[in-house]
Amino acid sequence: MTRSSSTPAPRRVGRPPGPTQHGAASRERILDAAAAVFARLGYDKARMDDVVEASGMTKGSVYFHFTSKESLAVAVLTEKHAHWLDQVRARLAATPSGTERLEALLPAMVGLHRDDPYAWAVARLTQNLSELPATRPLAAELTRRWIDDVADLVRDALPVDPTVDPVEVATLLVGAFDGLKATVQVLTDDPDTAARQLESGGALLMRMLRAVIAPS
Amino acid sequence: MTRSSSTPAPRRVGRPPGPTQHGAASRERILDAAAAVFARLGYDKARMDDVVEASGMTKGSVYFHFTSKESLAVAVLTEKHAHWLDQVRARLAATPSGTERLEALLPAMVGLHRDDPYAWAVARLTQNLSELPATRPLAAELTRRWIDDVADLVRDALPVDPTVDPVEVATLLVGAFDGLKATVQVLTDDPDTAARQLESGGALLMRMLRAVIAPS
Repeated sequence: MTRSSSTPAPRRVGRPPGPTQHGAASRERILDAAAAVFARLGYDKARMDDVVEASGMTKGSVYFHFTSKESLAVAVLTEKHAHWLDQVRARLAATPSGTERLEALLPAMVGLHRDDPYAWAVARLTQNLSELPATRPLAAELTRRWIDDVADLVRDALPVDPTVDPVEVATLLVGAFDGLKATVQVLTDDPDTAARQLESGGALLMRMLRAVIAPS
Repeated sequence: MTRSSSTPAPRRVGRPPGPTQHGAASRERILDAAAAVFARLGYDKARMDDVVEASGMTKGSVYFHFTSKESLAVAVLTEKHAHWLDQVRARLAATPSGTERLEALLPAMVGLHRDDPYAWAVARLTQNLSELPATRPLAAELTRRWIDDVADLVRDALPVDPTVDPVEVATLLVGAFDGLKATVQVLTDDPDTAARQLESGGALLMRMLRAVIAPS
């Protein structure tokens, strides 16, 4: 995972990366291991020891960078979110603007989930952190950030119908996509089937959206 | 909570209700307390002791009916699901058939969430149980049952477009509604605001659906 270049730097969590290349690399390695552990076990069941084991690093090293499971989860979510926003923006950059750009959103999201298995778990981790008083504001802020980005796409798609509220459309799109993900994961154990169902369900969602955004 | 009358009896979980009125009433009381505890804490954090406390009954009583947290969660989910399916069917019964009936689905779902606060937590509990090997098949089966019911409504609405697959539409509707619920709960602490956002987001979803089911 690389630090986002176009997104404003997320709130710093855990210790800052060391001044050395080595410290930053260790931090990334821990975050990747933690993302895998949270994806596999969920936030509540995951333990710091699981992250230590998955990272292949010493306990001291992990605790040097992150003093608690909560700070680790916050860092994973913050940095993954920034990374994914960048990925989606980069995928959309090829499409100039307007309705075509909004329509490129679904393939961009599906592509993101094909390339990064941890993307499947972000909605659940966001929900888990929204249930802890200390991290609830962050979970809401990151969700709002996704929604704002999607709302911009909706606005650019120039809805002719003034009864269409871009933020409401964006909230529905973000929620619907996350919910579709969760549902297909409940229905099937097979990642390929889940990916296929996410793709076809997402395409249907965009087709339904098109009818509202650009009625023929 | 009353036992469903029109839904096939769910797989029996926990001990059967005692032969006395009293035993059945105790069982219902424990299930309602457990539903509240799971809604408040989530499955992983909830403990049998929390259920004992919330029910106001003795530990012995609770364990007489349910020997584990897992069996309790399975019973809550199974019976709540059956109850909610019945509620939604009863709300739709007034609308004869076709597209109007499908359109009545959203108000029925919103009404259900207004009348029963535990309905907000069912998607999360389903997801939690889908993560445990022993209860994963049940979580998938109950989800499939919702989807089949919605798919019947979609079929009755007579989509003229043969590229519209009723089960795919139903999967998207069920997933989208659950995801919208989860998202508005992350965004706001206020139950009234969440209910309002669920209603307007759900209405938008049905408006988008209408454009696909019955294009003008």
